[in-house]
Amino acid sequence: MPTYKAPLRDMKFLLNEVFNYPRHYQSLSNGENATPDIVDAILGECARFCEEVLSPLYQSGDEEGCKLENGEVTTPKGYKEAYQQYVTGGWQGLSAPEEVGGQGLPASIGLFKQEMMGTANWSFSMYPGLSLGAMNTIQLHGSEEQIATYLVPLTEGRWGGTMCLTEPQCGTDLGQVRTKAEPQADGSYKVTGTKIFISSGDHDLTENIVHIVLARLPDAPKGTRGISLFIVPKFLPDGNGGVGERNGVSCGSLEKKMGIKASATCVMNFDGATGFLIGPENEGLNCMFTFMNTARIGTAIQGVGPAELSYQWALEYARERRSMRALSGKKDPQHAADALIHHADVRRMLLTQKAVAEGGRAMLYYAARLADHMVAGHLEGDDKKAAAYDDKLGFLTPILKGFLTELGYESANLGMQVFGGHGYIREHGMEQIVRDTRIATLYEGTTGIQALDLLGRKVLLMTQGGAVREFTLKIANFARKQLTDKRMRPFALELLKLTAQWNLLTVRIMLAARKDRDLVSAAANDFLMFSGYVTMAYMWARMAAVAVDKLDNGGNDAAEFYNAKLATAEFYYDRLLPRAQAHATSMLSPTRNLMQLEADHMAFTA
Amino acid sequence: MPTYKAPLRDMKFLLNEVFNYPRHYQSLSNGENATPDIVDAILGECARFCEEVLSPLYQSGDEEGCKLENGEVTTPKGYKEAYQQYVTGGWQGLSAPEEVGGQGLPASIGLFKQEMMGTANWSFSMYPGLSLGAMNTIQLHGSEEQIATYLVPLTEGRWGGTMCLTEPQCGTDLGQVRTKAEPQADGSYKVTGTKIFISSGDHDLTENIVHIVLARLPDAPKGTRGISLFIVPKFLPDGNGGVGERNGVSCGSLEKKMGIKASATCVMNFDGATGFLIGPENEGLNCMFTFMNTARIGTAIQGVGPAELSYQWALEYARERRSMRALSGKKDPQHAADALIHHADVRRMLLTQKAVAEGGRAMLYYAARLADHMVAGHLEGDDKKAAAYDDKLGFLTPILKGFLTELGYESANLGMQVFGGHGYIREHGMEQIVRDTRIATLYEGTTGIQALDLLGRKVLLMTQGGAVREFTLKIANFARKQLTDKRMRPFALELLKLTAQWNLLTVRIMLAARKDRDLVSAAANDFLMFSGYVTMAYMWARMAAVAVDKLDNGGNDAAEFYNAKLATAEFYYDRLLPRAQAHATSMLSPTRNLMQLEADHMAFTA
Repeated sequence: MPTYKAPLRDMKFLLNEVFNYPRHYQSLSNGENATPDIVDAILGECARFCEEVLSPLYQSGDEEGCKLENGEVTTPKGYKEAYQQYVTGGWQGLSAPEEVGGQGLPASIGLFKQEMMGTANWSFSMYPGLSLGAMNTIQLHGSEEQIATYLVPLTEGRWGGTMCLTEPQCGTDLGQVRTKAEPQADGSYKVTGTKIFISSGDHDLTENIVHIVLARLPDAPKGTRGISLFIVPKFLPDGNGGVGERNGVSCGSLEKKMGIKASATCVMNFDGATGFLIGPENEGLNCMFTFMNTARIGTAIQGVGPAELSYQWALEYARERRSMRALSGKKDPQHAADALIHHADVRRMLLTQKAVAEGGRAMLYYAARLADHMVAGHLEGDDKKAAAYDDKLGFLTPILKGFLTELGYESANLGMQVFGGHGYIREHGMEQIVRDTRIATLYEGTTGIQALDLLGRKVLLMTQGGAVREFTLKIANFARKQLTDKRMRPFALELLKLTAQWNLLTVRIMLAARKDRDLVSAAANDFLMFSGYVTMAYMWARMAAVAVDKLDNGGNDAAEFYNAKLATAEFYYDRLLPRAQAHATSMLSPTRNLMQLEADHMAFTA
Repeated sequence: MPTYKAPLRDMKFLLNEVFNYPRHYQSLSNGENATPDIVDAILGECARFCEEVLSPLYQSGDEEGCKLENGEVTTPKGYKEAYQQYVTGGWQGLSAPEEVGGQGLPASIGLFKQEMMGTANWSFSMYPGLSLGAMNTIQLHGSEEQIATYLVPLTEGRWGGTMCLTEPQCGTDLGQVRTKAEPQADGSYKVTGTKIFISSGDHDLTENIVHIVLARLPDAPKGTRGISLFIVPKFLPDGNGGVGERNGVSCGSLEKKMGIKASATCVMNFDGATGFLIGPENEGLNCMFTFMNTARIGTAIQGVGPAELSYQWALEYARERRSMRALSGKKDPQHAADALIHHADVRRMLLTQKAVAEGGRAMLYYAARLADHMVAGHLEGDDKKAAAYDDKLGFLTPILKGFLTELGYESANLGMQVFGGHGYIREHGMEQIVRDTRIATLYEGTTGIQALDLLGRKVLLMTQGGAVREFTLKIANFARKQLTDKRMRPFALELLKLTAQWNLLTVRIMLAARKDRDLVSAAANDFLMFSGYVTMAYMWARMAAVAVDKLDNGGNDAAEFYNAKLATAEFYYDRLLPRAQAHATSMLSPTRNLMQLEADHMAFTA
């Protein structure tokens, strides 16, 4: 069984050489503890935990899945023990404030941890991932009492958390939520309704589970403006940090899914369960969306992780498995056939995975600095700063989540393809990566929703194209500086062309959309993908620039590493980036080709 | 549970209006019985069988899977009864010669049957599909006695068949086959070895199973020139059409797979099993490959089928599920939200599925006429004619198999995407289509192998570009005739541009490959995909031309149907065809970007 090896060399390249995280941390009000030594030690220890504890449970967890018996969910063998190690290691509170029991480190360090955990074992990582969503919500909107009661045990990892949004009749369209919350004399509420697709809704990893629930107060306005947020714990707190009475919330059934089978996806029944209002009445959606950008970047990891994991396993296989001779002549004459890795078409697949894993990681680490500033703003009580960085992050979020999960899925499929027919067999694990990854383009907002969020909301509505102008200006400034170097010049020229094109596309859509409202939805997916390819091109140029500099000035210690970066950048620009032009062409085609066909004429029988 | 509805209207459009099959059948030496009435009746009866018998077993077969107990494989509940109906209906011998008990109809009618069966229930359709492979091999290479003994019960469907090629150490690279066949005094052979990935290797549907096995005679030359072909029956024939003694071949285990779980994929152990040489010694690979083109077109169906099935289910869901409001204003004001089908981005996904299903079907039906002529050549004993049509078919085969299975998989994924999170839940069946379809780009030659076969073998080696010239000439001739019609002109101009480009790309690769052998492997995948997009564009223009003609001259009876064809053609040209240009750009990029990175430098740890 193949296993995960944390790509620490690549991570440190990004942290120390490309994005200068040491200086970044010094600039943060909560960054003083994030010294290079500490960060190094944390990454190393996290890598060990992921490689030795989480990775070995990846396949067994899929085979066994979760079970619901007598109303209680049990996770696969070994998950409870692994989670206990996670708690003991203090991993849940890594980026949480010290005053609630966390280690007070910047948010980005939590993201690096999430990346390694999610790559080693996505299903496992969802349990603490969902807790983090609950923690963020309580931290920002909870009362002092709620923080003391819920946030502290959540930060310890002793309790788990969930986000209960979706109902049978609505997922994306939360204005249709029907769950009710009726006020009680004691200030609490009785919450009644059914929530579906609740990740970590029930499990045996923690002594309590804190559900954050969207529900409607009596006589609340219709639609999204009548939704409030409630804390509904599985067990009511006993007031001393422990648990008391069982609350009226239970797991009705477990969903049978394509993948992430070790993650419990629950139908949750709230049957007059005791809940507590969090945040202002009827502003539940806003409260819920506060950390939406960070949650979505958390999901963007599921684009990078599968590309990395699938690449590691496919690369190993391509080095060992022999089939046919390379077209340019025998490479392994002592064997009956050459290793797969000598075939150009196999390399095309492997390099696509590599370019997506490393390019996607760079996109994550680029965005993580913005998340750090946003969180620092919150901690400093500087709402304006927090909002400003949330906006910057908000532009990148749909690109990261939408584009990276699509390419992560493609990469996982290519990894499977490298294995040939063996990729289809469960024991190799490649098809599991595909099944597990398939969810990433669906939850936390489908790719279509990310595309609309990017083009309709972030680009057109909120900034009238300003978000694109601001980001492309940064790219163009970088590119212009690279024009003088022979090796960088092709990348720089391409970036300059693409940034101009990105702005032009934005303006053309903006003008046309005034008369043709459907155009935004018609163009959104192509716009998202175009944006993604250009953003990743920017990252590859940033990495190439560092590689060139190190090769020229850094001695030859790691020349192979930097040459590999340059070669991968070249591959990306030559063979993946041309797809951006197909999206540009399709994006500008008439809305008519999508809308003219009447719904009743889309299929004819007999 | 959604169910399959055979797209008879679309099938008949292709048969009668686009490709004029009635006239085609009249021109065939074995086509006299294929009158329009007969074909209609067969299609209708087959549709009924697929809709009422096979489709209801689709999901249950996946849930239950196959079982191996006491050395015998059992298929899921209901499969045996369904197969019995299939035998009773005489479906297996539909296109087999009358002298061996078949109905003597042209090969294409068998393909239309396969399409419907494969769309309704791919796993089920593999059992008779593999038998067909065995039948074809015996028909062409078997002795009279072998034909009488094996082909007759196979044609009845009373016996099943397999193709035993792959071994643990080799799939694509069959020169590495190790299974041995030792001659015995009675003229038979003892066959010993292990074969893997044997579809239908064992099951309970038939009273006997006829394995066609690749093996080596003692002292056979190394590599592909030392492989012979053997018939190894599960039970030795009793000489009276029944079965006698159990032979030394058995199923060692069933593979656990991602999908097609109702299809038994077996490890087959041959333990001194009695076998009979079929065809000449050491020419087993050639014999095996005789019907490779038809087998691969059979697999190309797995591109069209999933696109069709997934489209049918996604379309139904998109009409019923409501979420948000359309950007151009309320479409269903009486409801809390508009149906998904009113969102442009959802339509993008649905129309992609539709364009692939209908465009892919057209590609199959186009190729099926060539298959008819090839088979007719064989039946007439006209080897030259058979070979000529096999060559024409041979050019299209990798395009159909490689391109359609890739797009079929994309379409299945889009169907799942239309369902949002619900697509990931097993009960909706969408994720099963994705899992089942994933095998299609892997078996019968991976996409990479199809690409090499197309560019390296069919285009460069065998015809020095002539295959492209011949096919594009046909397309260009058609396109030029369409230039005068305003509605057809955009399609025709694009086709003329693309056919010239296809030739130019071919010439450029041909010249460059003389110095750079790796280029063929480096460019192959992009060349395959480019070829696929252009071929499908040709098909959409052919369909559009018929639609235009019918709209102008055919009255208004079915104007909606023809308008839908035109709208879909427009969608295809505007939104999918631009991808061809991304492939063209990538194809011509330097081989260096794939080959320069040393295998040892593709990953760095620590």
